Amino acid sequence: MASSLDGSSPAASNVRGAEYPRIHPDLRVTFRLLAPNAQQVQVQPGGNDNGLGTGPFDMVRGEDGSWTVTTPPAVPGFHYYSLLVDGVAVNDPASDTYFGYDKQTSGVEVPEPGVDFYDAQDVPHGEVRAHWYRSQTTDQWRRAYVYTPPDYDTHPETRYPVLYLQHGGGEDETSWAKQGRANFVLDNLIASGKALPMIVVMDCGYATPVAVLPPPAPRPRPLRAETGGQGQRQELPGEAMWERLRQISDAFEVLMINEIVPMVDATYRTIPDREHRGIAGLSMGSFEALRIGLGHLDLFASIAALSGGPFGGFDLQTACNGVFRDPAAFNKKVRLFWLGAGTAEVWIHTLIVGMHEALQGAGVRHVFYESAGTAHEWQTWRRHLHDLAPRLFRG
Amino acid sequence: MASSLDGSSPAASNVRGAEYPRIHPDLRVTFRLLAPNAQQVQVQPGGNDNGLGTGPFDMVRGEDGSWTVTTPPAVPGFHYYSLLVDGVAVNDPASDTYFGYDKQTSGVEVPEPGVDFYDAQDVPHGEVRAHWYRSQTTDQWRRAYVYTPPDYDTHPETRYPVLYLQHGGGEDETSWAKQGRANFVLDNLIASGKALPMIVVMDCGYATPVAVLPPPAPRPRPLRAETGGQGQRQELPGEAMWERLRQISDAFEVLMINEIVPMVDATYRTIPDREHRGIAGLSMGSFEALRIGLGHLDLFASIAALSGGPFGGFDLQTACNGVFRDPAAFNKKVRLFWLGAGTAEVWIHTLIVGMHEALQGAGVRHVFYESAGTAHEWQTWRRHLHDLAPRLFRG
Repeated sequence: MASSLDGSSPAASNVRGAEYPRIHPDLRVTFRLLAPNAQQVQVQPGGNDNGLGTGPFDMVRGEDGSWTVTTPPAVPGFHYYSLLVDGVAVNDPASDTYFGYDKQTSGVEVPEPGVDFYDAQDVPHGEVRAHWYRSQTTDQWRRAYVYTPPDYDTHPETRYPVLYLQHGGGEDETSWAKQGRANFVLDNLIASGKALPMIVVMDCGYATPVAVLPPPAPRPRPLRAETGGQGQRQELPGEAMWERLRQISDAFEVLMINEIVPMVDATYRTIPDREHRGIAGLSMGSFEALRIGLGHLDLFASIAALSGGPFGGFDLQTACNGVFRDPAAFNKKVRLFWLGAGTAEVWIHTLIVGMHEALQGAGVRHVFYESAGTAHEWQTWRRHLHDLAPRLFRG
Repeated sequence: MASSLDGSSPAASNVRGAEYPRIHPDLRVTFRLLAPNAQQVQVQPGGNDNGLGTGPFDMVRGEDGSWTVTTPPAVPGFHYYSLLVDGVAVNDPASDTYFGYDKQTSGVEVPEPGVDFYDAQDVPHGEVRAHWYRSQTTDQWRRAYVYTPPDYDTHPETRYPVLYLQHGGGEDETSWAKQGRANFVLDNLIASGKALPMIVVMDCGYATPVAVLPPPAPRPRPLRAETGGQGQRQELPGEAMWERLRQISDAFEVLMINEIVPMVDATYRTIPDREHRGIAGLSMGSFEALRIGLGHLDLFASIAALSGGPFGGFDLQTACNGVFRDPAAFNKKVRLFWLGAGTAEVWIHTLIVGMHEALQGAGVRHVFYESAGTAHEWQTWRRHLHDLAPRLFRG
């Protein structure tokens, strides 16, 4: 990418040939939109504070009718954002779009200096396959994204373990590969021998027709800004949100157990036993992973919750149908139990730390990983996958 | 999809749960956007007249701050469009986005009554694989989309013919599957026995860094509206546009011959000879298909130009380096030469009809297919693929 005199470069997430957004060496981001007739244009980062800052950032009109703003230095990673054109939230035509917030949404990639574990490196690459299957549960043709490791086609006798990997609320089966770069994370880990070659199945975590769900709960809003940091206090989710997540997970559990796992085992060269089957998910997907994984230990021996805990908070005696009550039995049965959070996602981090401490106190074997300085967004989950994948299907 | 009292339904291209755009039984389309503070909101169809009408269509503000318009009955098919919010062209947050016009662009799917050849039917489905490869030509990791037919993984000894299938200007490797539904077209044709199982390789037809290309020529603008029809006269492309297309095709030819074909033959179970290798493309891709296919008859025996002819118009003696000058030699060498256009894409249709008549007069064997009533857009090309694929790799 060409750098300008001020050292800034077009973001890697820009569409072909777009000069803006531009990333500065200190990770400030300059956005620009041509909108000669607009009265007000702003940049609105997604969520409460995703690392771009809270916003909205007022753009300033230039004489040529283009509007520009430069943000403070951003936290590295992938950040959703919208442009507010006279108050209407729209995508930036200069950026690629990603399915988030239940629609196609702009995103900007802010590089992390010296970090390349999620880049396309000069190593063998696996494929990401769009695989269609007919679901009886939802009465529709559904699409799963399936990562097959680099040697999958050239070693036709080899069978592989499988990780089922779920996205967050408002996202879909495309998100782990597109926003998360899961395939590149795996390619690099496999090439260096740090992770075993594995199949990764990324399906859409919504299996209930939208019409029968209660409306989405309002997103948590900031109560007050903390000083000196990126994090913000957020309200805890209310009962309506838990109930909605419960309904979504109920439906997805049926689909996963009755259809996705059998379909994957029938279609791909899997090792079809619990020791070689794991499930992980982020945010909403963590509820699904905990519910499905811990609820079906006959099928899954490895379970990971990324930035999310069990329904309604964590109690060692009652959480996940009491599976933690007998640590010895749990430790014998569960091969890997993995928890992660970003330090800047305040209430979730607090929740997971509490869960970690309770499990530790009770002697429940698990891994707890903190992503320093990152919020409830994709840089956290890329790091999570990078820590999680090498631990899977070992020993 | 739920229908309302007026018989309208949400478009299939809407994002999860979006009620608008809505398609009426007579194929009028109602668009809606919540924009309480905007001064003007319009719907702008892509291109000159893509089947939605020429627009822009002024939306009318309701008391709740939402803006609405209903178009005249649309031509069936997939139509790009933008919303103009106080003059700024933006995507509709309620619709999926598609890579077109060199950026992510909204599109609306208007169903064609009684037509299901591009729907996901209850037949075996192939996969669409995102395949990364390192290109020496462009010094980048590139991504090809590769359709593998339904039995590809279950018949590991079978080898398949390959169709190389190119998108149009401003689009990319995702377009034939997403906008064109090429995988469903093939699934259905293969299931009914009308087409042979084949691999379809969809790569990005841009292989030159954007910076070294001359700026894009202005898009052809309408001269005047024709009465009583969808078509419009458009200016013929000027020398600058031909030169730009020539440069794009030059670069892509090198990539295709030196890298893509060898990579595909090394990676997938192809039948690696000219008899089982075809190349087709639409619009800009048709220039590429003609240049590469007719320029490398040692590699390709089947060539198809969808909505486009050779550079600078057609002259039987000089076009495509004089390959049509000796009809007997051409007919002996070329297994399938296929031309198509939509009747509503006026100057291109005229160009292709002239080409067809000249070839016919000279005894050059070819197929000419007209898509009735469709313009320079995806319904034309879906129909083209549906006619073309069954003719490939036969006898």
